[in-house]
Amino acid sequence: MTGSEVASGSAPVETGLTAIAERLADGDADALVVVGDRFDSDLRYLSRAGTFDGRAAIAVSEDDAVLCPPAVERFDSSVSPVESRFRRGRATNPIDRSVRPVDTDDGAPVGERAAAAVTELVGSGADVVVPRTLPHDAAVYLKQAGHSIASTTAVREARTTKSDAEIDRLRTVQTAATAAMGDVAAIVAESTVASDASGSLCWREEPLSAERLRREADAALARAGVDPAGNTMVEGSQADRNVLRAGDPIVVSIAPRGPVGYHGALTRTFVVDGDGGWERRAHVAGETAGEMAVDAADPGVRVAVVSEEISAEVGAYGFDPAPGESGSGAVAVVHGVGLDRREPPSVDGETELRAGTVLAVEAGVRDRENGSIRLRDLMVVRESGGERIGECPSALAPERY
Amino acid sequence: MTGSEVASGSAPVETGLTAIAERLADGDADALVVVGDRFDSDLRYLSRAGTFDGRAAIAVSEDDAVLCPPAVERFDSSVSPVESRFRRGRATNPIDRSVRPVDTDDGAPVGERAAAAVTELVGSGADVVVPRTLPHDAAVYLKQAGHSIASTTAVREARTTKSDAEIDRLRTVQTAATAAMGDVAAIVAESTVASDASGSLCWREEPLSAERLRREADAALARAGVDPAGNTMVEGSQADRNVLRAGDPIVVSIAPRGPVGYHGALTRTFVVDGDGGWERRAHVAGETAGEMAVDAADPGVRVAVVSEEISAEVGAYGFDPAPGESGSGAVAVVHGVGLDRREPPSVDGETELRAGTVLAVEAGVRDRENGSIRLRDLMVVRESGGERIGECPSALAPERY
Repeated sequence: MTGSEVASGSAPVETGLTAIAERLADGDADALVVVGDRFDSDLRYLSRAGTFDGRAAIAVSEDDAVLCPPAVERFDSSVSPVESRFRRGRATNPIDRSVRPVDTDDGAPVGERAAAAVTELVGSGADVVVPRTLPHDAAVYLKQAGHSIASTTAVREARTTKSDAEIDRLRTVQTAATAAMGDVAAIVAESTVASDASGSLCWREEPLSAERLRREADAALARAGVDPAGNTMVEGSQADRNVLRAGDPIVVSIAPRGPVGYHGALTRTFVVDGDGGWERRAHVAGETAGEMAVDAADPGVRVAVVSEEISAEVGAYGFDPAPGESGSGAVAVVHGVGLDRREPPSVDGETELRAGTVLAVEAGVRDRENGSIRLRDLMVVRESGGERIGECPSALAPERY
Repeated sequence: MTGSEVASGSAPVETGLTAIAERLADGDADALVVVGDRFDSDLRYLSRAGTFDGRAAIAVSEDDAVLCPPAVERFDSSVSPVESRFRRGRATNPIDRSVRPVDTDDGAPVGERAAAAVTELVGSGADVVVPRTLPHDAAVYLKQAGHSIASTTAVREARTTKSDAEIDRLRTVQTAATAAMGDVAAIVAESTVASDASGSLCWREEPLSAERLRREADAALARAGVDPAGNTMVEGSQADRNVLRAGDPIVVSIAPRGPVGYHGALTRTFVVDGDGGWERRAHVAGETAGEMAVDAADPGVRVAVVSEEISAEVGAYGFDPAPGESGSGAVAVVHGVGLDRREPPSVDGETELRAGTVLAVEAGVRDRENGSIRLRDLMVVRESGGERIGECPSALAPERY
């Protein structure tokens, strides 16, 4: 078994074409077109294409789908465009068989080839729906080819309900994050306190700065087979965020992205030689509030309710549930996670949880004087209610696990 | 000094606004608008904005520039949108002072706010130039606001000539890649050969697979303060790419991305217990061809000439300079590197090198039977000629350095 098989779980992640095909069958439109680069999550969701350079396109009809590879820039002429552009690099997730990659690369812009693909799939004068982020040149090519375009949020909507295979991938990424957090906890547990008045931490005879610990966290992610998503954070003392000291909360937010593109999110707070007062109460408040959030997450409940549960519970521990300008009080951050590290649903509006909704849930206390105590986990909404994804210990005192 | 200061070099990287302002002053248009997410390299080049979620916009006139933050999705209402969206995470590169971030977020789509920003900067009915990848909705908002739009390649063109500060960043990233390659070389040097007939490598009493070595390379990058860019590759034997064996070439391609967004590229090939025949000749061919490529890279020379020099030199060592269908012969891959891991110039067409052009240059031999020997480095074109960026040893026999 290769490492990438381990990291990407067992059952293949299918394309998100079914939901789109159903919408098209309902008569909304004749075809859907998405054009984007390798960071375009809609394109990845529909095609499951992995890493490539330049822009690719997918054209979807009710019963077929065509993937147009990026325009050739001749870096290496000895391999075919489809092979080189979609299978280059780690072949983390080959194109789903239900998507037909076409090697039509005649040097034309990918938007122009997407327009031709629509004509081939459903004929001329088609009603085409596109995400509002469709590149402008692709819109122009579609119109020049005689198609009409309208924007749709269908792909983003489909993405908000995760399949079991997607939840598997999120769990795999979260497991890697947990392993990395274990390495971080072990480093903090092994660190010593400087004998001078600063109380700053040392590890392996060098100062343990927040930046050094962040790098170790990202290195641990890489070793666990996932990519650091560029947003891992370690926060130290209030006076100097880069200094880690005994007695001060150390907030560690680990941000990984797995090989098939799903993000994780895990935050823990450690205190070395804590005095057991404020930070312990804040930590219990955060832990309990996080549990309440999971308990509250039934299908049909408004997303905002999850956040409100956290604030109320933290408030019950004597902290300001709505800190506002003061800057001291409850932390309650809730948003969707998937192929984007932050994606719908948000706590705005009346959006309701559904079975398959995956949320990052952050609960804790922010305090101008004492610093922050924060915990963040992923959870999924099942028919039977909320369920945490992954199992990471949450002890305030750092220990190897 | 914090780690991110170390990793991002000394002199601040300036925005790419000057080149654009000059184009606008020449009367090409009244304003330029770019809309994109945090992966949009044009937006990063113009604004130097770091990591954020959602889509942001920049509107540039001859003498001013306005940055519109992403539309608020209310994840956390206790911080202002500009603060939270542009300064969240590692503050690797604060917005350049010459760009004015506006906190105009009234929930309107960023494209609509960009259109309003143009009106504010240069009045109504403006001639606006945009990259062809401008999101379609932004184009519609610009037109609805009474502006006319035309596409421009000005930003991409400006990006192909790197400033000294940009070259500093590329050197920093390449230095991190060199450190990671050193760790990889040390692991390969420390590994032992299984006593069975397979000849496969072991490290620290576990099999050393290509995937395991890739993870160690990415972990070393993270520890050196840069992000793995998701494209690090380790290739083992021809029969099973994931198996590393004595006598077979082990190709290690390290792909980092530094904290201000610049990419590196470094490839080395190792052979454990080589017999000194084919692979040594191929390795000398690759090394020499890489040097010839640097020597050939004078301003005014066509980019394709760099690639042709490599093929010719590898050919001089008795390998097929143009392998084509056979799949055995010279490897000569040349392309620009910067905020994108592959960007213009390419070897297509008549494009000429200029002072400030940065290229990734790969030279070596691919062989159906023996595997690949490949070396890749970054180089910059100076007025006085080509110059390698970074100094990574290239020994075929792995050794700690």
